[in-house]
Amino acid sequence: MKKLVFGVDIGGTNTAFGLVDEAGDIYAESVIPTKKYLLFDDYPAFVTDLCEGMQRLMASVTFDFELLGIGIGAPNGNYHKGTIEYPANLWKFRPDEKNPDESRRLFNLVADMQKYFPSTLILLTNDANAATIGEMVYGNAKGLQDFIMITLGTGLGSGFVANGEMIYGHDGFAGEFGHTIVERNNGRVCGCGRRGCLETYVSATGIKRTAFELMAKMNDQSELRDISFNDFDASMISAAAAKGDPVALETFRYTGEMLGRALADAVVISSPKAIFLFGGLAKAGKFLFEPTKWYMEENMLSVFKNKVDILPSGIEGKNAAILGSAALIWQKQA
Amino acid sequence: MKKLVFGVDIGGTNTAFGLVDEAGDIYAESVIPTKKYLLFDDYPAFVTDLCEGMQRLMASVTFDFELLGIGIGAPNGNYHKGTIEYPANLWKFRPDEKNPDESRRLFNLVADMQKYFPSTLILLTNDANAATIGEMVYGNAKGLQDFIMITLGTGLGSGFVANGEMIYGHDGFAGEFGHTIVERNNGRVCGCGRRGCLETYVSATGIKRTAFELMAKMNDQSELRDISFNDFDASMISAAAAKGDPVALETFRYTGEMLGRALADAVVISSPKAIFLFGGLAKAGKFLFEPTKWYMEENMLSVFKNKVDILPSGIEGKNAAILGSAALIWQKQA
Repeated sequence: MKKLVFGVDIGGTNTAFGLVDEAGDIYAESVIPTKKYLLFDDYPAFVTDLCEGMQRLMASVTFDFELLGIGIGAPNGNYHKGTIEYPANLWKFRPDEKNPDESRRLFNLVADMQKYFPSTLILLTNDANAATIGEMVYGNAKGLQDFIMITLGTGLGSGFVANGEMIYGHDGFAGEFGHTIVERNNGRVCGCGRRGCLETYVSATGIKRTAFELMAKMNDQSELRDISFNDFDASMISAAAAKGDPVALETFRYTGEMLGRALADAVVISSPKAIFLFGGLAKAGKFLFEPTKWYMEENMLSVFKNKVDILPSGIEGKNAAILGSAALIWQKQA
Repeated sequence: MKKLVFGVDIGGTNTAFGLVDEAGDIYAESVIPTKKYLLFDDYPAFVTDLCEGMQRLMASVTFDFELLGIGIGAPNGNYHKGTIEYPANLWKFRPDEKNPDESRRLFNLVADMQKYFPSTLILLTNDANAATIGEMVYGNAKGLQDFIMITLGTGLGSGFVANGEMIYGHDGFAGEFGHTIVERNNGRVCGCGRRGCLETYVSATGIKRTAFELMAKMNDQSELRDISFNDFDASMISAAAAKGDPVALETFRYTGEMLGRALADAVVISSPKAIFLFGGLAKAGKFLFEPTKWYMEENMLSVFKNKVDILPSGIEGKNAAILGSAALIWQKQA
């Protein structure tokens, strides 16, 4: 009988889920709007609607199959406990709620979903770790024992793999490379409450901040000067760089310098064979990859020089998040 | 029959070896002076003298035993290949040798020793990794799946353990945490040829450099001002700190700040349950541990705050290096 697993990707806007086979083919997929369930009180309805949606999707499949498990990627997902802990954008208290107890925002999602799927293996991790396992199972990291995945979205997520295993850490939250501090002197304010975190320089929002800093520093003409901060999107920098825009090119050089030197510091710890760049910003191609590689090598301890590849992810595309979550289960089967 | 393993610790001055049981008791030990074999040409004699010394030591044991394996800790030891690669202080070319080929300084120690012990398991790793495994098998890391070991000697060595396994990396050289760059603006010159590496601030030599920098910066009286740089030993700073010497106390505060914030950055990557400090500098006790813990927490991403212990090593003492090397074999038996 055909074997399938569910991949579930919980995002701030939508929650997508699909039935995936071992080759990465998706047989059925659907979505519910996470945004509809923004408030703390909505969490039980979210679980119900998600699980019933998944059951309907299973019923819609016209051939017999065995469901091997459900893999879930979610912000602040804890692999060891199966929980989502204090997610910044999900299931918040109402603004008018008096003295809300933040410690209650620890959601036992795996346990709660298990009521709908009593005998099914359910595994959950954060979105960057899910993408990392997706890279191992479906992407360019097949067969690699030691690699690093960098996911470039609004923030910078990461997954470290050593000895063929995902590093979850003792508490299930390892891999927050975006929150290593790369600038201690008056660094950029980070959403985490500290300053100078890598993701304030290297991410879709980080590169936008760099472009605006450079528009202030430089005198060169640039098409970027016609766009307001609120209208600005990171992809505009790639478009301008392709036309030789000096501010856009310097923005990428600086971004590559910040990422490259941070990667040189990560390499001395885990000595990966390769580093994969995933997500919107990685689509900038050579504009990002070339300076990142150059500055990584420039800052590298000699024993690691010219040993570590920086490569594009092999799971880019609209289904990457579903595939990554599904891979959580397939990896356990291997 | 009693089961024993050899622990061999190759240092720049001496090579110590001993027969160790699973409980960490050493039944016989001996030493050969590595310094006698400083030159490239001496390497074959070193192998012969070491292996024959080990065979004599085995013959000296008065009861029957089974030798399960030989574990070796050595500078620049490569676990995957069983080699020692370009060791800074060992088997150098003669100063008068014309055009020496540095690439020849890759010593196949495991293969060369295997000729003397044809059917014995021989494993080799660098000294910091050996200490790390020693901590797992004999020390305070028993049962821990995720921890970091920091060895403070002339330099700063480290071992990262995740999912219960040592992270060797794809090339066998992972764990060079002492060479993460912590100061990019005019940082201290490091033996590795770069600037600002953690070990130029946090190690026996690093703390000495800090003391001299602070004697220049501060005006306070200090007993440290009577000692020349060449006569200065890191232990003098502990002695002075115990008497309340202001320069010594500030030296430790600064050292703890540099180590603490570097550890906060390491924690976000591997999320360890504990961090162990090993080696001479760790003997300074509260003078080092208290500021290190304080600055680590001060710089910590909130999700990891107050979760990670900083603890003294459980294998300090004269036999730590032999135990660590022996542990390489015991860990494989487990």
